[in-house]
Amino acid sequence: MKVLITGIDGYSGWPLALHLLGRGHDVAGLDNFITRRRVTEVGSWSATPIRPFPKRQEAVRRHLGKELRFYKGDMTNYAFVHEVLAKERPDAIVHLAEQRSAPYSMIDVHHAVATQVDNVTGTLHLLYAIRDTCPDAHLVKMGTMGEYGTPNIDIPEGFFEIEYRGRKDRLPFPRQAGSWYHWSKVFDSGDVMFATRIFNLAATDVMQGVIYGTRTPDLTHDALLTRFDFDETWGTALNRFVVEAVLGIPITPYGAGGQKRGFIALEDSMQSLRLAVEHPAKAGEYRVFNQFDAYYSVNELAELVQRVGTELGLHPTIEHPPDPRVEAEQHYYQPVLENLPRLGYTRTRSLEDVVREIFHDLKRFKRRLVARKHVVMPVVLWRDADNRGHLSARGEPAKPAPPPTPGSAPTTANGSPA
Amino acid sequence: MKVLITGIDGYSGWPLALHLLGRGHDVAGLDNFITRRRVTEVGSWSATPIRPFPKRQEAVRRHLGKELRFYKGDMTNYAFVHEVLAKERPDAIVHLAEQRSAPYSMIDVHHAVATQVDNVTGTLHLLYAIRDTCPDAHLVKMGTMGEYGTPNIDIPEGFFEIEYRGRKDRLPFPRQAGSWYHWSKVFDSGDVMFATRIFNLAATDVMQGVIYGTRTPDLTHDALLTRFDFDETWGTALNRFVVEAVLGIPITPYGAGGQKRGFIALEDSMQSLRLAVEHPAKAGEYRVFNQFDAYYSVNELAELVQRVGTELGLHPTIEHPPDPRVEAEQHYYQPVLENLPRLGYTRTRSLEDVVREIFHDLKRFKRRLVARKHVVMPVVLWRDADNRGHLSARGEPAKPAPPPTPGSAPTTANGSPA
Repeated sequence: MKVLITGIDGYSGWPLALHLLGRGHDVAGLDNFITRRRVTEVGSWSATPIRPFPKRQEAVRRHLGKELRFYKGDMTNYAFVHEVLAKERPDAIVHLAEQRSAPYSMIDVHHAVATQVDNVTGTLHLLYAIRDTCPDAHLVKMGTMGEYGTPNIDIPEGFFEIEYRGRKDRLPFPRQAGSWYHWSKVFDSGDVMFATRIFNLAATDVMQGVIYGTRTPDLTHDALLTRFDFDETWGTALNRFVVEAVLGIPITPYGAGGQKRGFIALEDSMQSLRLAVEHPAKAGEYRVFNQFDAYYSVNELAELVQRVGTELGLHPTIEHPPDPRVEAEQHYYQPVLENLPRLGYTRTRSLEDVVREIFHDLKRFKRRLVARKHVVMPVVLWRDADNRGHLSARGEPAKPAPPPTPGSAPTTANGSPA
Repeated sequence: MKVLITGIDGYSGWPLALHLLGRGHDVAGLDNFITRRRVTEVGSWSATPIRPFPKRQEAVRRHLGKELRFYKGDMTNYAFVHEVLAKERPDAIVHLAEQRSAPYSMIDVHHAVATQVDNVTGTLHLLYAIRDTCPDAHLVKMGTMGEYGTPNIDIPEGFFEIEYRGRKDRLPFPRQAGSWYHWSKVFDSGDVMFATRIFNLAATDVMQGVIYGTRTPDLTHDALLTRFDFDETWGTALNRFVVEAVLGIPITPYGAGGQKRGFIALEDSMQSLRLAVEHPAKAGEYRVFNQFDAYYSVNELAELVQRVGTELGLHPTIEHPPDPRVEAEQHYYQPVLENLPRLGYTRTRSLEDVVREIFHDLKRFKRRLVARKHVVMPVVLWRDADNRGHLSARGEPAKPAPPPTPGSAPTTANGSPA
């Protein structure tokens, strides 16, 4: 199949490209490299050294003997999106090109607006460009389990049959997101659902758990590594816990640590996305896949990282900083996982194995962590009036970057931060 | 109370200002006059001649002996919003400043993006500016009954208690909007709900039915009239039916005409908004009011207009053009109306009386309708690839206006088109 990946330079976009190439698919991608710039904006970098994109393409040629077509550009530019789709006419599009950090969206009003505006604009542009250039293409759009929040009932896959006051209907499951970023994903879900109805498009909306891990079997050489973020803004819970253990600072589940979330290993996320691509939705169909390997409380994850770290000769401790977010610290959590297993999904990686692998990789790149140690702890407060002030108190420039404005859409996406 | 109305120049913003002044409130407003410009963009104008804003202020002074403070500016400019709120520090803010036409949002990709981007940006700006300048202010935000779509179960007021797989929760009612515009209102609802949680703001979210009518008791002089739109883009169902009857062209309920919607007379909408303002939500509270006087199928409305028109010596016919929208033409519809009556709301206007009143007013301004007769019939198709082409085939300029871009947010709102 001919697959286009938006946000191909990202944490999951890059290994997805390699995975699909390995399965014999024809792969192209686009990106504007904004995640690279925005990670710099908060004073951080990828723990794994990642190459400029042309070097990545070279490495693909050398190590895999494959060609990877690439378009540099911004999804808030409709002409660009239209041009790429008209040229590629892909069978499937995996849409990962979004601002994907919850804390980034909570920094201040401008980051909130940029997150929602850029994500919604990019997705609308993609929907219209598909309609106008390749209406039979199957859209696989990255959402997040965080769209659902933490209701006191089971979380089905996108829709549920309910009875209310004596009548029945099948309705979209209510969304209760916990950050401006997570709301932007809810908005995209609404727009994609509506587009399948009015334009007869085929779409799979993936409600993905938090991804963890440094590698997949396709990342066979250091030149093929994907990025790995560990700062409080761009890193996600489990990944950051291992970084803390490697750095010899306390592992920091926020608050009581009873917050439960769905998680998925990077490798199994690639398996899931490939299954979605290879088993497309039908024209006019809007289907939702929950995508996680299991759900854990952040305390369970912290304790696992502590145990593995201890076995590896480190002596990690656990501390509970006040939760900077606004979320329930103890709650019911029972999401359903049925659609992907029906397509053949089976979990291949155990949490413990992947955690060992992360430790192994991060120890190789420890000097890169040490050099950016100060960005690991949280300073962006969900309720706060002046997170800019906090960021600058941490020694970052008072104005690390001009406020992002609509028109500077990100085109990398790594799945969903915790 | 000190009340700020965003979109004060609009169909409902203007009579709300007069109504609140009449009740002794201190009223200020802001607007960017974009609805005036956008109605021109589609080749139309208000059936009622409306004055430039400074003349409106003069008329208020002369006829009501009151002062109305006004700020011209755009809500996509955060500095402007912050400045107005810091200066006014209102007790309540009624937020009507949004792009409020479903057909306008469906013209093409650029109109879709402008609608969602401008509406979401304006609302986010308002939420942060409230937090930073007047956190105790009560936000009354205009939503639409159209957010809910037409589920096969009763429509409660924003939230519902459900049992699912043996467990219970109170959750937001699922939203299934029917245009990019209606989705933009869903997005705003999500953001306002979230802001009450993280910023402890007080908010009332009004799910309003389609407004009809030319007047309220406060519009005592022609210089105080509010706008009245009748073209296919900016006019709403019932209002347009009366226009068609006055023009002697067929009344045109779309498709089968079994589409049911909640409707409300302009005067009772003012009553409802005033009640919301005078009985504020509590800090941290997000409450949702359904706001309509009754629900009707478009066929019932067409038949009523035909009957009243016939009594007035006209001979209106009814035709059913193909439905340009994507919507169920026969469906269950049973929205709940409890919160407003609990605050003292009672319906004061009968549909028939208001329809007579609209006929009366429109006959006075018939020459303005005749001059713009060609804009009444629908040409914007929900599924269509090139609505620009249709608009230009109607004799409008091929490019009636440059594609709207983020940063050109509307600051007038008239409630929710059907």
